Amino acid sequence: MYTYTELQEFTRQVFVKMGCPEEDARLAAEILVSADLRGIDSHGVARLPGYVRLQSLDRVNPKPNIRIVHQTPSTAVIDGDAGLGLVVAPKAMEIAIEKAQQVGTSWVAIRNSNHFGIAGYYAMMALQHDMIGLAMTHAGPLVAPTFSQDKLLGTNPIAIAIPADKQPPFVADFATTTAAYGKLEILQRKSQPTPTGWVQNAEGKPSTDAHAVKNGGALLPLGGDREHGSHKGYCLGAMVDILCGVLSGANYGPWVPPFATAGFMGTATQLVGAGTGHMLGAMRVDAFRPAQEFKEHMDNWINTFRAAKPVEGEACVQIPGDAERMMEAERKEKGIPVLAPVIESLNEIATKFGLPFKRN
Amino acid sequence: MYTYTELQEFTRQVFVKMGCPEEDARLAAEILVSADLRGIDSHGVARLPGYVRLQSLDRVNPKPNIRIVHQTPSTAVIDGDAGLGLVVAPKAMEIAIEKAQQVGTSWVAIRNSNHFGIAGYYAMMALQHDMIGLAMTHAGPLVAPTFSQDKLLGTNPIAIAIPADKQPPFVADFATTTAAYGKLEILQRKSQPTPTGWVQNAEGKPSTDAHAVKNGGALLPLGGDREHGSHKGYCLGAMVDILCGVLSGANYGPWVPPFATAGFMGTATQLVGAGTGHMLGAMRVDAFRPAQEFKEHMDNWINTFRAAKPVEGEACVQIPGDAERMMEAERKEKGIPVLAPVIESLNEIATKFGLPFKRN
Repeated sequence: MYTYTELQEFTRQVFVKMGCPEEDARLAAEILVSADLRGIDSHGVARLPGYVRLQSLDRVNPKPNIRIVHQTPSTAVIDGDAGLGLVVAPKAMEIAIEKAQQVGTSWVAIRNSNHFGIAGYYAMMALQHDMIGLAMTHAGPLVAPTFSQDKLLGTNPIAIAIPADKQPPFVADFATTTAAYGKLEILQRKSQPTPTGWVQNAEGKPSTDAHAVKNGGALLPLGGDREHGSHKGYCLGAMVDILCGVLSGANYGPWVPPFATAGFMGTATQLVGAGTGHMLGAMRVDAFRPAQEFKEHMDNWINTFRAAKPVEGEACVQIPGDAERMMEAERKEKGIPVLAPVIESLNEIATKFGLPFKRN
Repeated sequence: MYTYTELQEFTRQVFVKMGCPEEDARLAAEILVSADLRGIDSHGVARLPGYVRLQSLDRVNPKPNIRIVHQTPSTAVIDGDAGLGLVVAPKAMEIAIEKAQQVGTSWVAIRNSNHFGIAGYYAMMALQHDMIGLAMTHAGPLVAPTFSQDKLLGTNPIAIAIPADKQPPFVADFATTTAAYGKLEILQRKSQPTPTGWVQNAEGKPSTDAHAVKNGGALLPLGGDREHGSHKGYCLGAMVDILCGVLSGANYGPWVPPFATAGFMGTATQLVGAGTGHMLGAMRVDAFRPAQEFKEHMDNWINTFRAAKPVEGEACVQIPGDAERMMEAERKEKGIPVLAPVIESLNEIATKFGLPFKRN
C-alpha cells in the first residue's frame, strides 16, 4: 500500500528528473496519480515507465512551448510542442474554460501532444465553474473497425462531467471498445480467456485469447460484432479519432503514435500530422438555463436513476462516476495498492534517476 | 414501390391537413421521407400514423411559435411550442449554424418539441457550410440502465456528420442501444428470437424474446451486459438524455413523453419539464484549420479505412454513411418499397383526411 502523497511525490520527482519545470511536474504527477486514486490502475503509475521510455526515445519535450496556433471566440487549436499530454492538456482545458466563460461554450483541439492519462480528469476541471466538461483522446491503433482485419483505431475514450447540486457530479469516462487494453493484461496475468466480443485473432476471427492483440489480433469496438452493434462503437471511435486527429492537425488512424509501453506496435512512418491529438470542450450551464435550477434537476435525475429497482443479484443502479468516487474515498483512507510488477518497474526508475523509493 | 415524390407529396398533404403551414408541411415531409430514402424505414412514413395520433391526442401544435428563450454568442435554448420535431429541429439547426458562423462553434438545446425523425438529417445540414454537425434526441423510456429492471432511458440516438472533399461525407447516426426498437418489430413479424444482449424480460433477466419490451421487459444499452460494456452504452444514453432534457428544460428520464405509436407505454404525470428535447451542435471546420486542408485529410482518412483488409466473408470495411448513401441512390432510381401494413395505415390516413392515395 502506498499513500497518494507517496506516489504523487515520487512521480513528481521523476518528471523533474526528465527535465520538466517544477510546476509542470507537480501537476502532471497529480493528474497521473489521480488515476490510481480513482481505481483506474492501468492509467496511473503503471504508465510511468512508458513516459520514461517515451523520453528516452526523444519523443517527449520536457519544456514545451505550448501555444495557440489558431483561434476563434469559441475555439482554439493548441500545438503541444511534443510535451507530456499531462502538461499540455490541463493548459488546453483552461483555455476551453476561459472561452466558454466568454461566449458560452467552446471546443479546443490539441495536436503534437502525447498520452494524457485519464480523460475524466480534464472533463472534471469544468465542474467547479458550473460547466459541463468534455474530453476525448485518440491513441495508437489497437482496434479493428467492424469487418476489418487491420487495426486502425485506438481505444479512443470519451469523458463527460456534469455538475449536480447536493449529489456528486455525473462523470462518465470510457474507452469506445468493449474492453480497455488494461483488462486484457489482467486476464493475461491470470491465464484466463476473455469474454466473447472483446478481441479478434490475427485472421480477423472472433477470439477469446487474452494474448490475441499482441499476436496480430485486435481489440473490438464497443458492441463486439455487427449483430451486437460494433458498428456503433466503430462510429464512436472514428468520431474521436477525427476530432482529435484530423481536426487538430495531429496524426490519425494508423498513424497515431503508439504509447511507448506497447512494444509490439510498430511506429508509423510518413506521418500525416503532428504527434497525438486530444479534443476538449466546455459548456457553461447558465448559457442554457440558470445553473442552480439545472443542478437541482440533475439531483432529481440522479436520485431517480439511483432509486431504480436493481436486477436480481445487484445492490443498486449506479450513476456514472459512483464507482470511481467510492474508490477514491477508500484509497484516500486506506492507501493505494500497487501490483508487484509495477513496484518493480518503479524501483527501476528510481535506480535510473537516483531517487529514493520505498519498495514496501 | 413508391417514388420519393409520391411519399413526400402524400406526407406533405397530411401535415397540411393536420394544420401545418404550407412551408412547414413541405419541409417536415421532406425530412420524414428522407428516412425512407436512406433505408431507415422505421423512422419514415411508417411513423406517419404516430404523428397523426399525436395530433388527435392534442399533443402537437401545428402552428407553433418557435422562439429563442435564452442565448449567448455560442448557444441558444429554443422552445418548440409543442410543434412537430420535424418543424422545430430544422429551424433550431439553422440557428446553430448561424451561431457557428459567428463565433466558430455552437450548441442549441431544444425543449417542448416532439419526435424529430432521423437525427442524421440535422447533422447533415451542417455539411454544405463546411461544418461538422451534431444531433441528439432523447425519447420515451424503453431502455433499462445497466443493472436496472426499470426503463428510464430512450434509444437516444447520436448523429455526427463530417465533410470530406472528393469522398462523400462521414455520417454516423445510431441509437445508443444494442439494437433500435424497429429491429425488434422486424423480428416479431418473422417470429424470430433476438440475439443475446438486445433485451431483458420483465424480471430484468437476459432474454431473446422479440416481444419482451412490450411485455414489461426493456431494450438494453449498447454493449448488452456489464461484461460486454453496457455501462458505456448507459453512459452514452444518459449523456444524450441530460443534454437534451435537463439542459434544455424538457422532460428527462422516465418523464420523456412516449411517441404515440408505443401504445403499451404509459404517459408520465407530474412532468419535470416541457415536452421532448433535442441537442444540436455545429462546428465550423475553419475555426480549427483551413477547410480544404481538413477535407483532403478526411479523404485520406476515408480512403485508408476503406482500403483496410476485410475479414473473411465481408466485401469491405464501410465508412459510416456508406450504407445509407448507397440505399438512397438505389431508391432514388428504383423506388421505395413500403411494407403492406404500413401501406394499410397510410390508406387509413388518406381516408381520414379525404386525400388521394395510390395503394399499388
